[in-house]
Amino acid sequence: MTTIITLMTDFGIRDGYVGVMKGVILGIAPEARLVDLTHLISPQMVPEAALVLDRSAPYFPAGAIHIVVVDPGVGTARRPIAAQVGEQRYVGPDNGTLTRLLARARRQGWPMEIVHLDKPRYWRSEISNVFHGRDIFAPVAAHLAIGALLTDVGTPVTDPVLFPLPAPVRSATGLRGEITHLDHFGNIGTNLSAADLAGLGDVSVRLCGQEIRGLVRTFGERDPGELIALINSVGELSVSAVNGNAGQQLDAKVGDVIEVSKL
Amino acid sequence: MTTIITLMTDFGIRDGYVGVMKGVILGIAPEARLVDLTHLISPQMVPEAALVLDRSAPYFPAGAIHIVVVDPGVGTARRPIAAQVGEQRYVGPDNGTLTRLLARARRQGWPMEIVHLDKPRYWRSEISNVFHGRDIFAPVAAHLAIGALLTDVGTPVTDPVLFPLPAPVRSATGLRGEITHLDHFGNIGTNLSAADLAGLGDVSVRLCGQEIRGLVRTFGERDPGELIALINSVGELSVSAVNGNAGQQLDAKVGDVIEVSKL
Amino acid sequence: MTTIITLMTDFGIRDGYVGVMKGVILGIAPEARLVDLTHLISPQMVPEAALVLDRSAPYFPAGAIHIVVVDPGVGTARRPIAAQVGEQRYVGPDNGTLTRLLARARRQGWPMEIVHLDKPRYWRSEISNVFHGRDIFAPVAAHLAIGALLTDVGTPVTDPVLFPLPAPVRSATGLRGEITHLDHFGNIGTNLSAADLAGLGDVSVRLCGQEIRGLVRTFGERDPGELIALINSVGELSVSAVNGNAGQQLDAKVGDVIEVSKL
Repeated sequence: MTTIITLMTDFGIRDGYVGVMKGVILGIAPEARLVDLTHLISPQMVPEAALVLDRSAPYFPAGAIHIVVVDPGVGTARRPIAAQVGEQRYVGPDNGTLTRLLARARRQGWPMEIVHLDKPRYWRSEISNVFHGRDIFAPVAAHLAIGALLTDVGTPVTDPVLFPLPAPVRSATGLRGEITHLDHFGNIGTNLSAADLAGLGDVSVRLCGQEIRGLVRTFGERDPGELIALINSVGELSVSAVNGNAGQQLDAKVGDVIEVSKL
Repeated sequence: MTTIITLMTDFGIRDGYVGVMKGVILGIAPEARLVDLTHLISPQMVPEAALVLDRSAPYFPAGAIHIVVVDPGVGTARRPIAAQVGEQRYVGPDNGTLTRLLARARRQGWPMEIVHLDKPRYWRSEISNVFHGRDIFAPVAAHLAIGALLTDVGTPVTDPVLFPLPAPVRSATGLRGEITHLDHFGNIGTNLSAADLAGLGDVSVRLCGQEIRGLVRTFGERDPGELIALINSVGELSVSAVNGNAGQQLDAKVGDVIEVSKL
Repeated sequence: MTTIITLMTDFGIRDGYVGVMKGVILGIAPEARLVDLTHLISPQMVPEAALVLDRSAPYFPAGAIHIVVVDPGVGTARRPIAAQVGEQRYVGPDNGTLTRLLARARRQGWPMEIVHLDKPRYWRSEISNVFHGRDIFAPVAAHLAIGALLTDVGTPVTDPVLFPLPAPVRSATGLRGEITHLDHFGNIGTNLSAADLAGLGDVSVRLCGQEIRGLVRTFGERDPGELIALINSVGELSVSAVNGNAGQQLDAKVGDVIEVSKL
């Protein structure tokens, strides 16, 4: 049975760094199926990696291994870790990248297990201080893919680094949340879910000095250029511009406030 | 026998959306060979996707399945379709993406068959209104890859959406065409083919206020920076700047006129 | 046994050109494992390709085939070649792309063998003058992957094109080198190796009008924004800005001088 290994980094796609990680993986696990999630995480932006991982992992089959390397602390005391989260696995630095996926696992009651990667026999023989993606995470993921257990490659730990997740705030008239992601199209993702909005009925959405009255079901219901609010493909309230770029149009930024009120 | 599935979208490469489609495919067809064509089609630009598909498909082996998702109408009444075109297959929205490939099929006398994807048992169980790439097209392509027939996944239709293709206009002194594509290097592609030029002998090429006298065979025949006209790798008249970017140098745009006259 | 074929080009990722090469390869070698190194080599910049190839190849397993197509001379008299360098193979134009890898092979005493690709039966049947990546290099690499020998696909040659490599200059007080690469993060690579610096003890590094006193072991030892000098993941002296972009901050360019002196 072939194992899927996905790769997510902030390495960009110009320098061959990701290719090198794949070379290391295929040297150990020649049959692994490699899938790029993205290599354009903003440099050092762990929360962005955590969000993309949490949005993507649920669509992969059981057994998939996700390597995520956004690693400003490489070579310092920060721990390299691997984790089982539900039926999938994670390999990367212990710096908060798992925050959202572990929160999902707790909500869903999935099994979780985390190990500190402290068995150098599963690493490359020479370890640089600046590229653990190549020297530790790629070879460990490859060994997991060919049958090593989590407890083979590391020692159990129970205190992964987590960062605080912004929670929606409920008021008499509605909800207050924040922008969590701006995608390639300029779609604006938020921390407000369809479940959060349930029971509000028709709503008005305010962000970046603009108001959008009512939600639509899909883009084609409004004219090109118009701002719309809808429930996106991962079940979040999001704001878009039909055939346009809402993020640029609104000069929106991650962390900006979004308010929803009953109409 | 392993099936090739190619992916082309306007999703960009920052957000993990393409990776998610691959996760869905590999959950159904673990042995599929996945090849990215491009994910940088300009947002919502169906004609650009149609052109890249038509230029690329002929170089893939029989049996290849091409998923193309440039889909401004997602979630509206526009049909999801799959098609057999010659020995290859297409899966995506019915919005004109097949226009050029079907024109090629008609010229070549290839068999063609198109179905409306109306069998939800081949889709993901939950369908969003904004990401049919993940929820319909990826799983349908994966089912085709593992042996489903076109008539299993949909109902035959004969009226695919097509857009008009610009045709060259012949005059007493030559030909008039238009710019159809600007590539990464700034090479300028046109709707004039080598066959269209046959019989004209030596020609002068005019576009964007510049004249280029004579065609060359390849880039190295002129000095760096010089504008050249040649027959490109897909048999079209094209204009380039040696070691430079002709598109930027001429401020060329898709749709601009190009004129060819006998010298 | 499945063979790895890597691809490196200056083709960009917008136009489907790389996908087309993969289609050609998979038509001949359906089991080949394809890995992208990068397709964002600066247009026509052979030295950049040579550097990325030399940094990447050592991390791939024996038997890997590297296709590198940065090919301003396509269609001219420049030779298409294939080479065995140590346990790996190269396919591409004879334009200097192998310069660094062959220098490494000489230092290491690896076996080397180069052939001029002059057997059209291993090519596509129609050869364009502008896309040998598709028409010659992809099919030759695929044939090598399924068992063809170097001497099947070409005729031995011993005079590959090489470009001069900048050598460090030693002075009474230290070393003088130059910048060889700026990566996605703005890390500045140089032609000075850890071995070159051995014996100098504590050093001061000067480049672009700035001085950095002392080397660090990794990024986390200094505050965000601070310039640091360290030995990077391929054993070179490099300069970075912690969580920042040193290349932009210093307006550094490939070829700029870097000086190291004893403190």
